[in-house]
Amino acid sequence: MKTLKNDRFLRALMRQPVDCTPVWMMRQAGRYLPEYRAVRAKAGDFLSLCKNAEFACEVTLQPLHRFDLDAAILFSDILTIPDAMDLGLYFVEGEGPKFRQCVRTELDVARLKPPKIETELDYVLRAVRVIRNALNGTVPLIGFSGSPWTLACYMVEGGASKDFRHIKAMMYNRPELMHQLLAVLTDTVADYLNAQIDHGVQAVQIFDTWGGVLSEPCYQAFSLDYMHAIVQKLKRKSEGRPVPVILFTKNGGQWLSAMVATGADALSLDWSTAIGAARQQVGKRVALQGNMDPALLYADKPVIRQEVSRILADFGAYNGHVFNLGHGIHQFVEPDKAKIFVDAVHELSVPYHQKN
Amino acid sequence: MKTLKNDRFLRALMRQPVDCTPVWMMRQAGRYLPEYRAVRAKAGDFLSLCKNAEFACEVTLQPLHRFDLDAAILFSDILTIPDAMDLGLYFVEGEGPKFRQCVRTELDVARLKPPKIETELDYVLRAVRVIRNALNGTVPLIGFSGSPWTLACYMVEGGASKDFRHIKAMMYNRPELMHQLLAVLTDTVADYLNAQIDHGVQAVQIFDTWGGVLSEPCYQAFSLDYMHAIVQKLKRKSEGRPVPVILFTKNGGQWLSAMVATGADALSLDWSTAIGAARQQVGKRVALQGNMDPALLYADKPVIRQEVSRILADFGAYNGHVFNLGHGIHQFVEPDKAKIFVDAVHELSVPYHQKN
Repeated sequence: MKTLKNDRFLRALMRQPVDCTPVWMMRQAGRYLPEYRAVRAKAGDFLSLCKNAEFACEVTLQPLHRFDLDAAILFSDILTIPDAMDLGLYFVEGEGPKFRQCVRTELDVARLKPPKIETELDYVLRAVRVIRNALNGTVPLIGFSGSPWTLACYMVEGGASKDFRHIKAMMYNRPELMHQLLAVLTDTVADYLNAQIDHGVQAVQIFDTWGGVLSEPCYQAFSLDYMHAIVQKLKRKSEGRPVPVILFTKNGGQWLSAMVATGADALSLDWSTAIGAARQQVGKRVALQGNMDPALLYADKPVIRQEVSRILADFGAYNGHVFNLGHGIHQFVEPDKAKIFVDAVHELSVPYHQKN
Repeated sequence: MKTLKNDRFLRALMRQPVDCTPVWMMRQAGRYLPEYRAVRAKAGDFLSLCKNAEFACEVTLQPLHRFDLDAAILFSDILTIPDAMDLGLYFVEGEGPKFRQCVRTELDVARLKPPKIETELDYVLRAVRVIRNALNGTVPLIGFSGSPWTLACYMVEGGASKDFRHIKAMMYNRPELMHQLLAVLTDTVADYLNAQIDHGVQAVQIFDTWGGVLSEPCYQAFSLDYMHAIVQKLKRKSEGRPVPVILFTKNGGQWLSAMVATGADALSLDWSTAIGAARQQVGKRVALQGNMDPALLYADKPVIRQEVSRILADFGAYNGHVFNLGHGIHQFVEPDKAKIFVDAVHELSVPYHQKN
């Protein structure tokens, strides 16, 4: 194993002391960067970009050339698993992902074939290896997957949804069928993340984008319990170091204590949750990641710095904070604003890490 | 004043004893009803429907003919105020409301003309009178308005938005301009609701649809403080009875204590908040309204009854519960499902109201 030159991110996730607060941005490799748009145009479309390891590596590294980020995140799509299940994933510009086949009946669920990760998702694992090699130990690489509930939302609805009509009808009327689908996805997600770890990712994040559309009992039963099972199945150590697990349920701020009980190392917060109150609530049981409103990057430089300063102060002088946006960076942000944000985190956080 | 035959809804909002839990549904007059679609087709478009008091009365009463509801809600749009400010409101099928003119600059804000409620929004007040007369004392009539923040979102963005790019840029970069716009809207909303009360509504609800897209400090400063000011300005008594005020911030479950401090009589909860925990948190300071997931109305009859039963049990045998959905009823719901829901609330709640 190559020595990691900057391990702030991994240390903060394990609530160890750091010199300053580490920072990365969800969707940091993305459309707000002109160089990303150039590679994407070269690749042809979004899926071709994900499936070509060299292109995926190139866009993964792009934000690191511009900004002093403390982690890279594998460039991929959250729907690689259902795509590998032959549901016919495609993208319509401005409308998000869609599937040619929806999963709604008993028969649909029964004939789902869990993909063989090493062969059918080999392009993801190859991208992990290529990126790790290109990173050359500068910063750690984060792997990720959508949560079973989130993947199921797209598979049952056939794409993005406003009212989650079909999956909620399935969940309420056929809970056993819903559980059957989620169980298949849970095994696959765990295998997928473990394969990413085997091939070189140094931390993993589970994106539960749609857990927040559920009531508390349904969140527990149909989303959180399955993420709990995944956390239990994950390889928590690789290359002689812990591999931290981060859970992110968008709009999950009311359920932090339940999320802690999964055994995850860190929770990622959206910006609606006050990070100081969250820290008091979770205590020393997990690290926290977040949570600046991504729309702050539409603001002027001093305003961005002021908000970074406010969030740092709200978290306070404790171990276990990874700075991030509360959700993915918006496509219309000027890249210079991201630089101001990243630099502000490093600069303004130093006083919180000086131990007497 | 005519005697009100059924005052369960008003009593529950004031945390007084009732014989069973009152129930109504947000957007109960709406597209899921074929008779609504018929009147709307007759009216031509949505705005014409809102602006014709006889049509508005007809659709307000439609759900009451079908279901044993404990309240009627004025049929209107939340954007009547900006429409009366001559911003050119129009609707595009499937895309929601849009404005021909956005409010983004100092000049835009300076030239906004607060509407004279009694003349420029007279069609709303006329609808209130016609509906009150048609209700003939059967159930109370609820008036409503969008919150200043929510109205501002549409006015600044020029319509619905995913990332609230323009209003957040204004809020972060030009807070004084944002406050100026919100102050104008606050006075107008208070006047508007007071006029509705003068003309006959017996309770009012403030819909803060977009407060939940803010961080906690911004929610407090840019949404809640203005709702607080409105609550203070409202006529809290009319026709010899209290006129209760209900606040509804979608995705506001983390901020209930702050919402209580406005002096509102009741808080409306979306379904992500556990109503039992919410009741413990707010104690006897306010009533609670809600909060079944509207998607439950896609479920089968026994499942709907089971969920009603669960929510009733979670709230417990206390005064101060108005049953509702956690958000508006969806357009694809079969009307029979709404009947099952309403009847289940009345039937299953009786044991919780039997005092020893």
